[in-house]
Amino acid sequence: MEHCLACEKKMDEGAYHCSHDCTFCSECTESFKNVCPNCGGMLVPKVKRALLLIDVQQAFLHPKWGSRNNPHAEEEMLFILKEWRRLGWEVIHIRHRSHHPESVFHPSNEGFRFKEGFDPIPGETVLEKDVNSAFIGTGLEEHLRQLDVTEIVIVGLTTPHCISTSARMSGNLGFTTFVLSDATAAFDLVDPEGRTLDASLVHDVSLATLHGEFATVLKATDYIRALFPDNSGASLQCPLP
Amino acid sequence: MEHCLACEKKMDEGAYHCSHDCTFCSECTESFKNVCPNCGGMLVPKVKRALLLIDVQQAFLHPKWGSRNNPHAEEEMLFILKEWRRLGWEVIHIRHRSHHPESVFHPSNEGFRFKEGFDPIPGETVLEKDVNSAFIGTGLEEHLRQLDVTEIVIVGLTTPHCISTSARMSGNLGFTTFVLSDATAAFDLVDPEGRTLDASLVHDVSLATLHGEFATVLKATDYIRALFPDNSGASLQCPLP
Repeated sequence: MEHCLACEKKMDEGAYHCSHDCTFCSECTESFKNVCPNCGGMLVPKVKRALLLIDVQQAFLHPKWGSRNNPHAEEEMLFILKEWRRLGWEVIHIRHRSHHPESVFHPSNEGFRFKEGFDPIPGETVLEKDVNSAFIGTGLEEHLRQLDVTEIVIVGLTTPHCISTSARMSGNLGFTTFVLSDATAAFDLVDPEGRTLDASLVHDVSLATLHGEFATVLKATDYIRALFPDNSGASLQCPLP
Repeated sequence: MEHCLACEKKMDEGAYHCSHDCTFCSECTESFKNVCPNCGGMLVPKVKRALLLIDVQQAFLHPKWGSRNNPHAEEEMLFILKEWRRLGWEVIHIRHRSHHPESVFHPSNEGFRFKEGFDPIPGETVLEKDVNSAFIGTGLEEHLRQLDVTEIVIVGLTTPHCISTSARMSGNLGFTTFVLSDATAAFDLVDPEGRTLDASLVHDVSLATLHGEFATVLKATDYIRALFPDNSGASLQCPLP
């Protein structure tokens, strides 16, 4: 149960917050004309959000995967992870664990490790999976329901397989789902006739398939911008002293 | 519990059958050198299979969907459905039911009806869904487990959405999964930037994404041929009188 920072009323729902997570009841928010009295940022409806980082593991550095698109995807993943941590929102790391010792995802191999910069910090959740979907065999749905999370933002690897499968299930299970297009990436694929499909094509078709049907697809910075339309002050401390 | 047609032994597992479903224990099968004594057809390991027909409904005749590939997909669906019924195997119709009266999938609209030739017959299962995945909110997984089904063959509409989502979950839930490429079809898609992606491209990339990762993708006739390599006698009655 949260309290309004201004009138100290307990709030079950209907709360608003700024990009620094100063939280107010709807009445105080109206009296402030939707402007945070601390930082001057816009107050927007507070929704419980979770960031899913899927399979951001060293296994995908292996040359066996072939050509990849979006070489800067990890930078965008780090950008959104940093924003999420600053806001104190729910971070969930989905980690692939293979049971086959020869797999690059087996815990005995380097590939099982998180990529540089993606190690979880205290308070973040790590769930392990052994199939593509982050929702199968992980308890993820129950975990999200327990936390009252209704909105999920998905980043990680790879777009056509684990990202697409997890985003499909997220949408179909009723979560408002976002996939950040520049914080995901694909590798070349070989079709059933043996033809190679280019990583960029696979990435684009995968995202087009998700967009508007299972999820909203947009860039990482556009997601943050849409959340806090006037957010100019990522370096501000809020509430101000 | 089944009995061997030759020695009448009860069989829990390890049974073999011909394309007419004459079923024998492994010992009798070995003594017959894997040839059915009734029809002369090959005896292959008997696996409990189910055919999933997904969203084969008149809603997809509506012009709003735009251009489609595989105009003959319904003929291939009917071919496999006829084979399945001949073999007496499990047929499951997955039907989309929308809660929105304006939807082409709402029961008050023509579109809710099955396409011509696809009405279920007695003994077949109909499960209704209201999202893309045939496994969410339908009880399908429990139904398949109860029937001891381990292999699933998927046909229907459309390749990138309900077929792909259902095939991904089927594979991830541990079912041996086949998607019949010529018994599915896609419509044009619009990507997040507003560009139109051709139905054939969407179909091909969707199937390439599934193949080898979640399912085996092949043509309907190739599936049947692989099942019964020497099956020349679809018109034979077996066991012969």
